[in-house]
Amino acid sequence: MEFIEGVREKEDLSVSAVLSGDYAGKTIKMRGAVHNVRDMGEVAFIILRKAEGLVQCVYEKGTAGFSLKDLKEESAVEVSGRVTPEKRAPNGFELRLETLSVLSEPAEVLPLAVNKYKMRTSLEAKLALRPVSLRNVRERAKFKLQEGIVRGFREFLMSQGFTEVHTPKIVARGAEGGSNVFRLDYFNKKAELGQSPQFYKQTMVGVYDRVFETAPVFRAEKHNTTRHLNEYVSLDFEMGYIDSFEEIMAMETGFLQYTMALLEREYKKELELLEVRLPDVSHIPAVRFDRAKELAAEKYNRRIRNPYDLEPEEELLIGRYFQEEYGSDFVFVTHYPSKKRPFYAMDDPQDSRFTLSFDLLFRGLEVTTGGQRIHDYGEILRKMEKRGMDPADIESYLMIFKYGMPPHGGLGIGLERLTMRLLGEQNVREASLFPRDVIRLEP
Amino acid sequence: MEFIEGVREKEDLSVSAVLSGDYAGKTIKMRGAVHNVRDMGEVAFIILRKAEGLVQCVYEKGTAGFSLKDLKEESAVEVSGRVTPEKRAPNGFELRLETLSVLSEPAEVLPLAVNKYKMRTSLEAKLALRPVSLRNVRERAKFKLQEGIVRGFREFLMSQGFTEVHTPKIVARGAEGGSNVFRLDYFNKKAELGQSPQFYKQTMVGVYDRVFETAPVFRAEKHNTTRHLNEYVSLDFEMGYIDSFEEIMAMETGFLQYTMALLEREYKKELELLEVRLPDVSHIPAVRFDRAKELAAEKYNRRIRNPYDLEPEEELLIGRYFQEEYGSDFVFVTHYPSKKRPFYAMDDPQDSRFTLSFDLLFRGLEVTTGGQRIHDYGEILRKMEKRGMDPADIESYLMIFKYGMPPHGGLGIGLERLTMRLLGEQNVREASLFPRDVIRLEP
Repeated sequence: MEFIEGVREKEDLSVSAVLSGDYAGKTIKMRGAVHNVRDMGEVAFIILRKAEGLVQCVYEKGTAGFSLKDLKEESAVEVSGRVTPEKRAPNGFELRLETLSVLSEPAEVLPLAVNKYKMRTSLEAKLALRPVSLRNVRERAKFKLQEGIVRGFREFLMSQGFTEVHTPKIVARGAEGGSNVFRLDYFNKKAELGQSPQFYKQTMVGVYDRVFETAPVFRAEKHNTTRHLNEYVSLDFEMGYIDSFEEIMAMETGFLQYTMALLEREYKKELELLEVRLPDVSHIPAVRFDRAKELAAEKYNRRIRNPYDLEPEEELLIGRYFQEEYGSDFVFVTHYPSKKRPFYAMDDPQDSRFTLSFDLLFRGLEVTTGGQRIHDYGEILRKMEKRGMDPADIESYLMIFKYGMPPHGGLGIGLERLTMRLLGEQNVREASLFPRDVIRLEP
Repeated sequence: MEFIEGVREKEDLSVSAVLSGDYAGKTIKMRGAVHNVRDMGEVAFIILRKAEGLVQCVYEKGTAGFSLKDLKEESAVEVSGRVTPEKRAPNGFELRLETLSVLSEPAEVLPLAVNKYKMRTSLEAKLALRPVSLRNVRERAKFKLQEGIVRGFREFLMSQGFTEVHTPKIVARGAEGGSNVFRLDYFNKKAELGQSPQFYKQTMVGVYDRVFETAPVFRAEKHNTTRHLNEYVSLDFEMGYIDSFEEIMAMETGFLQYTMALLEREYKKELELLEVRLPDVSHIPAVRFDRAKELAAEKYNRRIRNPYDLEPEEELLIGRYFQEEYGSDFVFVTHYPSKKRPFYAMDDPQDSRFTLSFDLLFRGLEVTTGGQRIHDYGEILRKMEKRGMDPADIESYLMIFKYGMPPHGGLGIGLERLTMRLLGEQNVREASLFPRDVIRLEP
């Protein structure tokens, strides 16, 4: 009988293994994709692409036991060579090649120059060829930073006593209502794709006090803008036993502080590659919705058209205002009008036209919506009645209030929007591996 | 202007804060749900339920400044009391109550006794009342262990150089094909819910060499069994530059080793509460599919009906065989017949009727399917042709092979099945917070 005993060290080395060991002058094995071949006559540089970065391999005619002209870019290869310190090479070393063997070969030449530092091509073209355009080192660096954001979210919240949950995406009824839901047939029952884990995360506050989830949500928005995706990753948390909705903003600020420090520490290479300037999140201004509108209108000489809504242009101006006046990339806009918030939002006891809720703007773009929720059964029933909603439709959600819920609140962060703003990109599609929009269902 | 500066310590303490500090004899504040009230006449025990466990509060008539009879179970309360060491109390201490204030109250009495140690009720009843039945400490402990499994998966793979990815769940075409797909209308285009991130994770191997994802998948299976869910969490990884498909099994074994150690270390309370015996995963037997069938047939005197498939009963017997003969809770069954595997599976070069693939059985239940994939463009086209498939249907997936892919493979683990077997549960619904099956779309 054969037994599998766990991971064994591989003979071929990673970049970090080379960097952490004493390999100078030694011959090692490495595997990777042939990212680039630059033939200079007597010598050639073969650039290997590996997960952690590029490795420069030096091919000298007559020395290495293979023929350069047979080598195709995007082949997967194993090389052996002598590790030689070289300041100008990526990661500070190069390999003087001794052998190269091809593990697999492409059938055709790449349709775009993914091995250029910057791919000078349109977003359209990049997205159409996404499976290969992501092989560009700057493209892939974006999603490595995205990994860091999600990691920061989870690590920070776990340190704060939150529990991770997994809630269903096929639901009887979306939490937000409205027309932007994808519908499907579920064994002859009408079902929808979850617009948010709202009902479920509130439910889980009754179980674990503090919970989070990182999962896809679905919105059938018909407008094709630079800030909307029809499927995106939502970073959600919900916390019980709060004294005020400011605790939710404080928790988000804590997450941002933790995550920027994590990126600074462990994603330095990607930050440099993309020339990303990390925002200062030591303190974030918070301003009331109505006041924010006034400030922007006064300073930028703009008329307030609708006192109950923020237009995208207004968000940009509010962002600009707090950038200019306080040097802050972020601003919490609080106390959104009750009419613009879902039924479960808690109204401000001091003025029920407004809610104990907030959005977080990052460089003028809404990246988070959050707030305190109603926790009293009678109160939520009254609010539903006022809005003409039928409690029978969401009986299993209302159950949690009937049988007791602590005061609580939470938020949802759009991962792609947060990533996009961090990267300084102008289109949210740049921050989604395989974006779903009104026209894109593939790749 | 107000500024939000991050998380401030709260006045009320968590269980671990009390346990880690020197609070004996001191008066502290705590918040939680009233889990249970046991009135003994002169004294009463009020049991608080908090995220980390139960806290025993002692109420002495005349001492505490509130009336016991007004206190409802499932109220959210803040108490203050003196910390007193008490061996018989949960976590080794109790609070001698001084004050209690109610933060919120339920409208009705709970419909089932969630505060009993074991809820003696049917699965049906538990699921119908899931939003509150999860408040039972044993119920919620199951999903705390589930959290630990997912955490172990991510932490271990990150330590092995994997990158986390987020791929779309609304897709043009499912990876597995067949009839078990949920269909939906996507802006007048036909779309499906992903049965697996297969195509996308393979694509991302071309970008990051090693990737993983933890996300929901959807299967419209019409059969109502104890092991099927129509939506579940799939733990997926895919790795490039492999020498053989055994490396994939070794990586999974490494994950299991890491995770069992993590559970042992950080989820001890839950393991004890649920009387879970962690399996030995130091080495896991691997046996060929055909040989496994023979072994089970011989030992348990059973006729092999279909040489190309494993029936659930056969899986159970194979599991039993390796339990009895090798003391192993796990067994890798390798070299599944080509006809039973998807087109992208790599056939065994020594016998193309079989594939370089495997399932992992845990106490007789398939919890993982994995294997090496075809990486050569010509080869995958030939296999598709043999199966009558049209390459035009999945052009953007085939792009990765056309432009070059390293040898690679991976697997998908059903989170709920793995959790179920670990818990010793007989129904997979016990291991899903809000299970989706043929009849359940709510809660």
